[in-house]
Amino acid sequence: MDPFRDPALPTAERVADLLSRMTLSEKIGQLNQRLLGWHTWQRREDGFALTDGLDKEIEATGGIGAVYGLLRSDAWSGRDWRTGAGPEESAELTAMVQERIVGRSRLGIPALFAEEAPHGHQALGGQLLPTNIGVAATWRPQLLEEAAAQVATELRARGTHLALVSGLDILRDPRWGRSEECFGEDPLLASAFTRALVNGLQSVPGVGAVLKHFAAQGAGIGGRNGSGAPIGPRELAEIHLPAARAGIEAGAVGVMAAYNDIDGVPCVANADLLGRILRQDWGFGGLVMADMGAIDRLTLTGDHRVAAALALSAGVDLSLCDRAYTELADALAASMISEELIDRACARVLTVKIDLGLLDPPQPAPSFPAPSRLDDLIADTAVLISNDGTLPLLDGDCGRLAVIGPNADDLDALLGDYVPPLPEGTGTTVLTGLRDRFGADRVAYAPGCLLTRSIPGGIDRAVELARAANRVVLVIGSSGQRHYEDSFADNGAADLTGQPVTATTGEGFDVADLELPEPQRDLVAAVAATGTPVIAVIISGRPLSLDFVADRCAAVLSCWYPGPDGGRAVAALLAGDREPAGRLPVSLPRSSGTLPVAYNERVESVSRYIDSETGTRFGFGAGLGYATWSLGPARRTVDGLTAELTNTSNRSGRQVVQLYGRARVAGIQPRRAVLLGFSTAELGARQSATVTVPVRPDALTGLGSPTDGVVDLWLSLTGADDQPDVIAVAAIDVAAIDVAGAGG
Amino acid sequence: MDPFRDPALPTAERVADLLSRMTLSEKIGQLNQRLLGWHTWQRREDGFALTDGLDKEIEATGGIGAVYGLLRSDAWSGRDWRTGAGPEESAELTAMVQERIVGRSRLGIPALFAEEAPHGHQALGGQLLPTNIGVAATWRPQLLEEAAAQVATELRARGTHLALVSGLDILRDPRWGRSEECFGEDPLLASAFTRALVNGLQSVPGVGAVLKHFAAQGAGIGGRNGSGAPIGPRELAEIHLPAARAGIEAGAVGVMAAYNDIDGVPCVANADLLGRILRQDWGFGGLVMADMGAIDRLTLTGDHRVAAALALSAGVDLSLCDRAYTELADALAASMISEELIDRACARVLTVKIDLGLLDPPQPAPSFPAPSRLDDLIADTAVLISNDGTLPLLDGDCGRLAVIGPNADDLDALLGDYVPPLPEGTGTTVLTGLRDRFGADRVAYAPGCLLTRSIPGGIDRAVELARAANRVVLVIGSSGQRHYEDSFADNGAADLTGQPVTATTGEGFDVADLELPEPQRDLVAAVAATGTPVIAVIISGRPLSLDFVADRCAAVLSCWYPGPDGGRAVAALLAGDREPAGRLPVSLPRSSGTLPVAYNERVESVSRYIDSETGTRFGFGAGLGYATWSLGPARRTVDGLTAELTNTSNRSGRQVVQLYGRARVAGIQPRRAVLLGFSTAELGARQSATVTVPVRPDALTGLGSPTDGVVDLWLSLTGADDQPDVIAVAAIDVAAIDVAGAGG
Repeated sequence: MDPFRDPALPTAERVADLLSRMTLSEKIGQLNQRLLGWHTWQRREDGFALTDGLDKEIEATGGIGAVYGLLRSDAWSGRDWRTGAGPEESAELTAMVQERIVGRSRLGIPALFAEEAPHGHQALGGQLLPTNIGVAATWRPQLLEEAAAQVATELRARGTHLALVSGLDILRDPRWGRSEECFGEDPLLASAFTRALVNGLQSVPGVGAVLKHFAAQGAGIGGRNGSGAPIGPRELAEIHLPAARAGIEAGAVGVMAAYNDIDGVPCVANADLLGRILRQDWGFGGLVMADMGAIDRLTLTGDHRVAAALALSAGVDLSLCDRAYTELADALAASMISEELIDRACARVLTVKIDLGLLDPPQPAPSFPAPSRLDDLIADTAVLISNDGTLPLLDGDCGRLAVIGPNADDLDALLGDYVPPLPEGTGTTVLTGLRDRFGADRVAYAPGCLLTRSIPGGIDRAVELARAANRVVLVIGSSGQRHYEDSFADNGAADLTGQPVTATTGEGFDVADLELPEPQRDLVAAVAATGTPVIAVIISGRPLSLDFVADRCAAVLSCWYPGPDGGRAVAALLAGDREPAGRLPVSLPRSSGTLPVAYNERVESVSRYIDSETGTRFGFGAGLGYATWSLGPARRTVDGLTAELTNTSNRSGRQVVQLYGRARVAGIQPRRAVLLGFSTAELGARQSATVTVPVRPDALTGLGSPTDGVVDLWLSLTGADDQPDVIAVAAIDVAAIDVAGAGG
Repeated sequence: MDPFRDPALPTAERVADLLSRMTLSEKIGQLNQRLLGWHTWQRREDGFALTDGLDKEIEATGGIGAVYGLLRSDAWSGRDWRTGAGPEESAELTAMVQERIVGRSRLGIPALFAEEAPHGHQALGGQLLPTNIGVAATWRPQLLEEAAAQVATELRARGTHLALVSGLDILRDPRWGRSEECFGEDPLLASAFTRALVNGLQSVPGVGAVLKHFAAQGAGIGGRNGSGAPIGPRELAEIHLPAARAGIEAGAVGVMAAYNDIDGVPCVANADLLGRILRQDWGFGGLVMADMGAIDRLTLTGDHRVAAALALSAGVDLSLCDRAYTELADALAASMISEELIDRACARVLTVKIDLGLLDPPQPAPSFPAPSRLDDLIADTAVLISNDGTLPLLDGDCGRLAVIGPNADDLDALLGDYVPPLPEGTGTTVLTGLRDRFGADRVAYAPGCLLTRSIPGGIDRAVELARAANRVVLVIGSSGQRHYEDSFADNGAADLTGQPVTATTGEGFDVADLELPEPQRDLVAAVAATGTPVIAVIISGRPLSLDFVADRCAAVLSCWYPGPDGGRAVAALLAGDREPAGRLPVSLPRSSGTLPVAYNERVESVSRYIDSETGTRFGFGAGLGYATWSLGPARRTVDGLTAELTNTSNRSGRQVVQLYGRARVAGIQPRRAVLLGFSTAELGARQSATVTVPVRPDALTGLGSPTDGVVDLWLSLTGADDQPDVIAVAAIDVAAIDVAGAGG
């Protein structure tokens, strides 16, 4: 057996052996991932057939490093239940493509198969998760870890190796259409979920997580997709890098270098980011993949060799749909790069292949897993941001319900971006969920309006229903639905040029105005004016300004994009079958004009705009339940704070105890507050428990890595903004935290 | 004669001699500027009398380094024409205060007298200039240089030494209340005006310019005054530092360290900014003054010694109203600083005193200069942003005018922030200007509404006038008017807590919404609906979103804050007596939600928000005249571009030829365009001239200081955004520019 095929040998030895046998052309082939996978095959009456494109690409590049999106099914790929590969057929298809690639490779090197899985797998029958922003609202990383393991089992069963997953983008500007892909605005919270995501996905041997996007895409100006992030090293380190570092410490096999520049230097050409920080400081040995076409964007003078040389030198190992990396041989011939740089990148690609078992003798793939309900994960994404007592809708006395709104009976609106078409007959809209829970005869329905357009007579009909009902459930917000007839840019982002907009969130759907669109505001105002208590259910991947809604409605439940089973969860929450347990992972802005509003911006001296309050009304960490709580005085422990938590109500409930700090370090403008740790607790009626929240050592980055000075610590049940609810302030030495951190 | 008093000796020798004679306490006294000058004296029946406060401060600090605002007259100081020092009395007052300070100083060291002069001198009878944003709209730095020399003559005549002048803040977020203090959004334009300002002010011996604010206050997040600027070194260097560097190269005696932090480090504690960049890289030998109370804001733990040590170590020489610098002796005793640091700062203060002649034998002060009309400067600030041909209002056929709007007859609204009360009977409102120009019998007037509130029946009356008129002149916008009964923060910024807002711009008047306030929008809509052609005259220090106005009005003239004689200038422009020659020094945003919008942000791939265009409708460099122009093909010269400019109209006119570039440097995301130079030309009817615009060598910073790559160059008459109007694109070597620059 060739040494590179010997599973008993260390990976490095196998890689070195394989590399030594490869030609330059074969090495360069490993750095290319140019095919959109769905173009490599067709579905025929009698099964799958490979297209010419696959063979041509193998020949053109001297072998293929990776194939992107073989199973991707969505409006962009055009694959649907008629033309795509169903869950049970995926393994056959991937094996067929791999067989061809291996067969055409002189050394028999297989390709990595990479698929989008930002919140579940974007393939037919893929397990879908709530979008990240909702997942973060649970404050329960363990739930994500379990769900991610489920997704990984599915990927493994299909023959997919790399899951491209969101998690590193920190949500600092909710105008951004990709807000839903972020684990909120806080680096510690995002780190916890990124760690869980990696742990879950990579708990299945043979599956690797590629974390996107590295780095600071959430700092793009204007909330415009991929715009530049002119931030400094401290802002980068404190806000935008911790989640990446957490994911890498958890063992992620790869990161995806982002489109944006950081202070002028595009991430794919950023040696400081990909070299000094990622490799040297963090010791990352894995794979850096470029975002789609990002290397070609470096080409300013028409010379793709320059772009290739820049990206390779900076540390991009694997390109994605770029022309540039096909010109690496020319760049080498022109002495723009050395062959050592090609070897370095190739070794990293081969390392991942060997670590994921691609060069080992084939193992039997696990069978396709049954879909999981994920009830806890879905339900706990919902954040009850206001409630005058109208919720829960107790069976006995809530009477007739009018279910109104453009998102009330729209299954697609529950899903978010990057999703496949659902299997026929699956999923539950909010309307269906409420009918199932309360009885169809008690539930009337009218859409009222579309997302961004009115319906002739729609409001009149809605008002009529509202008047006749005892309670209104108004399901409004956003949608990321794509249509198969939509246009798309080269990288799959929606191309909005010249087509009517139906969706309002997702990649390519940035907005200037964070209010609900006018037709929805009109609907809210008209329905609320009837006097029937209105419960607003917000379905949206973007943190909207909800002041207008909260001013007019009895209760507001923010549900993000809960996924296809969201309707059932919403019904259970409104009925009080479950406790709303989510807490905001992002501050809801009052308006675009008050951005930025993250709770952990630095202390400012200005108290207001002349035409608006600054800050937020619904801030980071806020959220109500049906149970009521008290928290005793906080006490210092060796590594954090502890206090007595009491459920003072007659129902059991779940609570998130949040530990915040504020550094007082000479010469650094303090952040208003920094989340340093959190614990969740579930307590029965009238129960008490001692809750200890350790300061996470990695959270010290968010305090500006103080080496002297003091840190104020406090616990909160109501979020970062509520000074009146500060429970305890303890001034302690940072050195003491450091000690605690080392053991934490 | 003591050597330090010998004008024949070099400054450094005199400083060293004086320093060697001083006690620690005396040295520390020189670093303090704690008194608000207007508190040191009172006006009595029989003349001026000094207060106890002055003596106490001299004793407390061991001598006084500087006194701020001795002559400041405004709502904050409370000084007015009844209680303040008139222009002809100022010299007597300053001499009286100086005599006391010198008399109480063991070594007879006088104090520096510093006064606010952000756009003219904030003292009774002070010469007022248009605010900086309007001055920049002239694109004629020479006009500012002349006006600044006039201001300096006045300062010298009063006995003032230091003019605190705005200029370094680059306008990147128009929500900021201090937008008017910026020379626009562009570093090259701001540099040209800062240079002119320093040259003008310091053309008068004995007067020094202190440039504020250093640095990057214009990058503060959210347009919130003094908020943090989390930017990186490249953004700092390319956008926010060039104006400071230009001012320092012109010889400015001082800079004021700003309130904001840069990437977390407050400017007054920022050794990288005040040490490495300012002193080492730029070789600045002058004075660093802190903004008011900024050093005390460093105190996070109650220990002012720490704050003092931080600021002194970073390089702040002179404090302004801080407690911290009174504790320098304690900081020294605690070994937080060395005495060398105190000596270093003291030497810098003494250097300025000696350089400005404070220790020389007294010279006769010049007599108080007659006020200057500054007609060209004032008129050329106005930018005609749209015109359907309604302008100019030719005498013969414009008929009856209805002059409408809250700013039509408000003299204070023309002034901006940081102004003294005007002398009785001076100034010309727009209404008065139009009556004078067109005849009172042809001009009717109604306010229509207040700035932010409606007037009962106001719109009805305005509509009535509009219907009866042939043309409407609608004078709307903003105001910076302060009232003597207003409240103020410790640093003189308006304190908005609990008081009704009347002003809408100036320090402390940040806004979330860049639209005109609703009452003004209602007025615009109602008046425009009459069908009578409406000419909108915008009086505002802030770049507002003017799309709403431009959609409804026949012409829009943006006049910024032109100063007390603005009404006359507006009338002359509307009548066509003068050519509107201003060009926008800042991009007008479509809305807050589309920020940031500066023309020289980096290239982005996104083309629009789903609910708004990105970019601007009225962009940087745009502006119309009454004459029409053509520009021939551009040709490369040794140091820039040249082209034939023709006035194709039958009237003489003025034009600004703008030279833009875009760098194509491998690995740096290009800015969309960068202003590299500009020339103004005045041509008679049907005249042609060859215009040459050199690339300014300092402009290369804005291109990312390319050391390789190419730069595209083009000329434009219509601003940075208009690609269809690009005249020529020449790809040239950067090396060639460098050569040219060295000689330019």
